[in-house]
Amino acid sequence: MADVGLAFSLAIDAMGGDAAPEAVLDGLELAAERHPGARFLLVGDEARVGAALARRKRAAKVCSLRHAPEVISGDLKPTVALRMRGSSMRLAIDAVASGEAAGVVSAGNTGALMALAKIVIKTMPEIDRPALAAIGPSARGDVVLLDLGANVQCDARNLVEFAIMGDAFARVALGLTMPSIGLLNVGSEELKGDDRVRAAAEILRDSHIGAQFRGFIEGHDITAGTVDVVVTDGFTGNVALKTGEGALKLMRDLLRQVFTSSIPARLGYLLARPALDRLREWMDPRRYNGAILLGLNGVVVKSHGGTDALGFAHAVDVAMDMVTHGYNDRIKDGFERLAGRNRLAPSPN
Amino acid sequence: MADVGLAFSLAIDAMGGDAAPEAVLDGLELAAERHPGARFLLVGDEARVGAALARRKRAAKVCSLRHAPEVISGDLKPTVALRMRGSSMRLAIDAVASGEAAGVVSAGNTGALMALAKIVIKTMPEIDRPALAAIGPSARGDVVLLDLGANVQCDARNLVEFAIMGDAFARVALGLTMPSIGLLNVGSEELKGDDRVRAAAEILRDSHIGAQFRGFIEGHDITAGTVDVVVTDGFTGNVALKTGEGALKLMRDLLRQVFTSSIPARLGYLLARPALDRLREWMDPRRYNGAILLGLNGVVVKSHGGTDALGFAHAVDVAMDMVTHGYNDRIKDGFERLAGRNRLAPSPN
Repeated sequence: MADVGLAFSLAIDAMGGDAAPEAVLDGLELAAERHPGARFLLVGDEARVGAALARRKRAAKVCSLRHAPEVISGDLKPTVALRMRGSSMRLAIDAVASGEAAGVVSAGNTGALMALAKIVIKTMPEIDRPALAAIGPSARGDVVLLDLGANVQCDARNLVEFAIMGDAFARVALGLTMPSIGLLNVGSEELKGDDRVRAAAEILRDSHIGAQFRGFIEGHDITAGTVDVVVTDGFTGNVALKTGEGALKLMRDLLRQVFTSSIPARLGYLLARPALDRLREWMDPRRYNGAILLGLNGVVVKSHGGTDALGFAHAVDVAMDMVTHGYNDRIKDGFERLAGRNRLAPSPN
Repeated sequence: MADVGLAFSLAIDAMGGDAAPEAVLDGLELAAERHPGARFLLVGDEARVGAALARRKRAAKVCSLRHAPEVISGDLKPTVALRMRGSSMRLAIDAVASGEAAGVVSAGNTGALMALAKIVIKTMPEIDRPALAAIGPSARGDVVLLDLGANVQCDARNLVEFAIMGDAFARVALGLTMPSIGLLNVGSEELKGDDRVRAAAEILRDSHIGAQFRGFIEGHDITAGTVDVVVTDGFTGNVALKTGEGALKLMRDLLRQVFTSSIPARLGYLLARPALDRLREWMDPRRYNGAILLGLNGVVVKSHGGTDALGFAHAVDVAMDMVTHGYNDRIKDGFERLAGRNRLAPSPN
């Protein structure tokens, strides 16, 4: 972490998530092994977290504990959470804003994390609006999807910003040198869709990432892996992500019924089990845990509230990738190159 | 069909689709058996369709043939298709506008069908904009989803109209007496989403279908079967449908790989095959073939261009359900009841 030059790689909200602080600390125990040079600032109830930390040798070596007297519950309204000054989430975010840590990971209340991060860490000066991104599986490798709901109403400028942030994220998190980028639409022809997506496509075609831009894609292209980065507004992205997850869940539930429906089917399951287990492992939601708020003056990763140690460790992996590969510097570079090519019109709303 | 009082139940575009006219006529051979009282007006090239019809005994008995000198190809622009007066699709649609047939089924060019139907058959006077609907599978039975792309930009009034059309369609096509209705959003809380969905929800709660309205639902609720009718704008609906289909296809492709990956896995597949075949049959896209353009002065059903006889027969089933159960009268009734409760504000755009 010498290249970052901060006291801590990441601040960790020890109290966020359904099984906190135990699942968080088990996750850090794994993360400590994977990222030997990292230092974590662990924020939470001193007595509870301290006792739990004492039982994890590897995590104890790389974590410093900071007391937070309050916890933001999962159902608390973001507006109320914003007024709590002593929550573990708030103090972890404060550590990023003050320059102690390069990023923050929390499995707590999503709305509160987004609101607090935007207000405390603040949006990068180059960007109009931050976006929520995630990585998911496709037939041709991992795919980045954004925005997932940070902005329910977007204009063309926002979509262009999402493409630039998604490009930088795919380079850092997927290790790609020239990620391909697609704009989600109702058809792949140039005249399809509304003014907003057509205007965004025009800007992207002329931009410095024009060679990576594949134009419009459709819903089925997400899991087909037609592109590495899928760009859309927060309303559509949120619905697409949850619809895709829902369809996969339906199929999993139906397969479970199939394989318990008769004795031969049970036997068949046992025979095919090694291959089915590989499939399950490949599609494991924990491998894709971590929604990333892009475009702030620091790295912010939201772990799923219900995940276990493996899932939390994966969210830490994503945050560490962004910190060590200088994600925010890459975004800045992208916007400078965009400005050099064609100046973005100011957002009308 | 005595209750309809028209010369034909349905006009059929014999030349639409990848395998026309053979697949269309095979589909009608099945439909003739399922709908003994129906009469079909078959529109297409007299020589080709006549020869093909002569080889299908059941279809020949219930079909009258009308010559159409032209065919609208799959990639023709709707604006060009609109100027062709002698296409099989156009003449089939003309038969609905003139009152000869109660509805039309075509497996041809979707954009051309939507444009021609809107201009020739025309929108019902009660409705601002027609919507494209389809039926899909869920964990708790079939689900109606609309709009699927007829309107990429919608206001609150359009969403309310879609709910009323979807309600009537679920009664007719799924045989439900009180279909539950949900409005697709990025969260189920009342404050989520944009002004448009919140305004639509408010109108629906106070409307005559208020007791059926379950409020906001999310993407994963579609395949979970949380509601019978999922209402959304055409952009989001199109993306959701294709994303869900894409996720199911990914899972099917991966399962195929699993079951051919080793000898034990192949054996396992053979043992589980009867149950897997039932699953495949249940999710068969042909069972869900037929996108329905709702809100016109006649029934308009679009069959998938690549479907076979079974799929085309299913599209005819859907159209026949709408014709025999007086779908358009039900919509009219719905709008009269809505107007009685609260008058819809005129659409601002």
